[in-house]
Amino acid sequence: MATSAARKMRRKGLAIMAVQTVASTTPADDSGEAPFGPAAALSCRECGTRYPLSPVFACQECFGPLEVAYDLPLGDPEGLRRRIEAGPANIWRYAPLLPVPADVTGKQNLNPGWTKLVKADNLARELGITGGLYVKDDSGNPTHSFKDRVVAIALEAARTFGLTTLSCSSTGNLAGAVGAAAARAGFRSCVFIPHDLEQGKVVMAAVYGGELVAIEGSYDDVNRFCSELIGDPIGEGWGFVNVNLRPYYGEGSKTLAYEIAEQLGWRLPDNLVIPIASGSQLTKIDKGLQELIKLGLVEDKPYKIYGAQAEGCSPVSAAYKAGHDVVRPVKPDTIAKSLAIGNPADGPYVLDIARRTGGAVEDVDDEQIVDAIKLLARTEGIFAETAGGVTVGVLRKLIETGQLDPAAETVVLNTGDGLKTLDAVSETTGPTATIRPTVAAFREAGLA
Amino acid sequence: MATSAARKMRRKGLAIMAVQTVASTTPADDSGEAPFGPAAALSCRECGTRYPLSPVFACQECFGPLEVAYDLPLGDPEGLRRRIEAGPANIWRYAPLLPVPADVTGKQNLNPGWTKLVKADNLARELGITGGLYVKDDSGNPTHSFKDRVVAIALEAARTFGLTTLSCSSTGNLAGAVGAAAARAGFRSCVFIPHDLEQGKVVMAAVYGGELVAIEGSYDDVNRFCSELIGDPIGEGWGFVNVNLRPYYGEGSKTLAYEIAEQLGWRLPDNLVIPIASGSQLTKIDKGLQELIKLGLVEDKPYKIYGAQAEGCSPVSAAYKAGHDVVRPVKPDTIAKSLAIGNPADGPYVLDIARRTGGAVEDVDDEQIVDAIKLLARTEGIFAETAGGVTVGVLRKLIETGQLDPAAETVVLNTGDGLKTLDAVSETTGPTATIRPTVAAFREAGLA
Repeated sequence: MATSAARKMRRKGLAIMAVQTVASTTPADDSGEAPFGPAAALSCRECGTRYPLSPVFACQECFGPLEVAYDLPLGDPEGLRRRIEAGPANIWRYAPLLPVPADVTGKQNLNPGWTKLVKADNLARELGITGGLYVKDDSGNPTHSFKDRVVAIALEAARTFGLTTLSCSSTGNLAGAVGAAAARAGFRSCVFIPHDLEQGKVVMAAVYGGELVAIEGSYDDVNRFCSELIGDPIGEGWGFVNVNLRPYYGEGSKTLAYEIAEQLGWRLPDNLVIPIASGSQLTKIDKGLQELIKLGLVEDKPYKIYGAQAEGCSPVSAAYKAGHDVVRPVKPDTIAKSLAIGNPADGPYVLDIARRTGGAVEDVDDEQIVDAIKLLARTEGIFAETAGGVTVGVLRKLIETGQLDPAAETVVLNTGDGLKTLDAVSETTGPTATIRPTVAAFREAGLA
Repeated sequence: MATSAARKMRRKGLAIMAVQTVASTTPADDSGEAPFGPAAALSCRECGTRYPLSPVFACQECFGPLEVAYDLPLGDPEGLRRRIEAGPANIWRYAPLLPVPADVTGKQNLNPGWTKLVKADNLARELGITGGLYVKDDSGNPTHSFKDRVVAIALEAARTFGLTTLSCSSTGNLAGAVGAAAARAGFRSCVFIPHDLEQGKVVMAAVYGGELVAIEGSYDDVNRFCSELIGDPIGEGWGFVNVNLRPYYGEGSKTLAYEIAEQLGWRLPDNLVIPIASGSQLTKIDKGLQELIKLGLVEDKPYKIYGAQAEGCSPVSAAYKAGHDVVRPVKPDTIAKSLAIGNPADGPYVLDIARRTGGAVEDVDDEQIVDAIKLLARTEGIFAETAGGVTVGVLRKLIETGQLDPAAETVVLNTGDGLKTLDAVSETTGPTATIRPTVAAFREAGLA
């Protein structure tokens, strides 16, 4: 798969900075236990070169992204299943499959995960789905988005590496997740957001008492700035969860795959509809599903992965439709700000996965997003943020356009909470009437 | 214990209306199973008169409030404990102790509960607590407040009685919980709120697609209006979760007691700090703790219950401090709107419990509430709504004034979510700085 020259150049600069960062940090764990559990190394996604587990994220040979490689506990699926089922009601039940120490449950952490998989019969009926529909509702996490999962893993890596400041570039949800996790774990935090975020996300990012820096620019500008900062002496001792800790961070999304399969009774659904921001979540869910098959925890069967974008920021969807395997960056303009990444790092991998599994990538406009938020609320009592509106809206569009089989079993993700994106619906959502407190007034208002 | 003449008169009127309502409804369950599980009757809290399980809420003899009486499964605590532990990760694990049918897990419900009990070592250190401190964090519920618990039980009662509209008077959290639960369960809903609520709560109440009616008046005006409506033909077939379904509704709060004890390893803490709105939650938590002792699920030991109010609506705290056993209504003026009930129905029972257990009732002002919200966020990564600020603020005050022993083990409740009361903190919570996306700008802003 081709990686564009521009992407390679950017990674090259970052890789050098990252190596500088490594030199100044050392693993802090002295318990004698494997601080990264079953993780064996970092491995380049492009060329396979392996590196020791350290806070680096780009290959020195080819500048490809690094990811965690495991010595997975193969050979005893029943024993592993029992061990998982006896674990806590959070992501640490999957510690045997994550880059964390075995004693991770004893650390100060927000313990996210094990969110509800809601059987969505009402929504299925409205959409004409007959094969079964589930909503994986990650608004139940501690800061009400799936970001708590990825931050929890990055935080444990930061702890092991002896880093003292937790940081990130964020479209909002991640800022809150990092602020909260750092507060609880006793880390300093300094997070960076675009200056024009929703009020709920700004307040949530700031309330935990860390530094919050608003950047005059888009999320992509914020991201570039963070890459610059990490190469500066200022960034020494900093763990940018989605930059130099990205290989660990990304693994958190695998837990969505594990939970969906376990909550279905240790089996795979036919279809998954997943939002795309950087694309990392979608690729890691696929990785998690593949691991489950390899481990013998689920039966091997085909599944289709569908990616969902907002029309106002749909570079992956555009590439998919045009048959390209590179993604051309765009300038985002959508109410789905948590998905507004115009230059998605994992875009090409998303295209691979959608094509390999027989899925697709689709997009919906702002009006369809709002409609889908209301549809999910009205049918299932789940108030999603705009990203959830994107996935449910795309699910509807996929059915209407014949791209997704309504007779197959589908899981759609809601990755965030409607309370953080009130503006998306507040203009069209309010009291039916305002009346004086009398039955007569109730009657007069035509409500009886 | 004295009940004031005015309260009696009000109850008398409501009791008559309630009986009229009963006549028009019949239990819809035809499965042959006990539709209310271990619940045996309704029983008057004042005179003990018993009534069949029906949608009534006030005694026809003395106008006292009715509550659910049980044939509890005594005699086999180990078997009961195992049954509970094998149950789902929500309130239905306690179905053997709740007025619900045994097959309740199969119904369309939001399945709230089993929220985190967070060991709050950082907060304990700041407050000087040495005996152990836990936060029971009910912001993890589906609509992010403890109200999902009470509504879930009321909804099942409404289903059994064949009621078709779910309704309530609400300070906001309840409106969202009713709207969401009704949407998922396929009930019509019509909820009533004061016209001046926080935007987050208004949008959340409306987004589920039911009727939302804003009332020009205070919560107490809304409540009176609902009592009027329930006696009107309009109200036929309506289940007001906190009026005619109140005996069932209230039982939902018992699950907080069960979860706290189970999550502590089946034992009781020394102290509990609980917010007071109507006072129902506090009295039902006490009821739940007493049941656990009676059932042999926990060792019998003393515990102290502390009630927490906002100074701007502190009728129970005022009565406690004055040594009264009746509560004089007040006109609320506080940022803690979810606790702004000036005429709390269960106030006298709260006074009884605080005195009997050796606890207390205390209040904090708006500034202390905001400080406590930030303290909890900064130390534990939990963003509470104003009601959580009240309980944490009161905990701090109780320690400072020597009313609560810091060497004892304490559980403090957070019953709601900071995203719903952003205004309380938004003025004093925001970005540290807004800068251009360059390292130089970061340095210039004095952030390095």
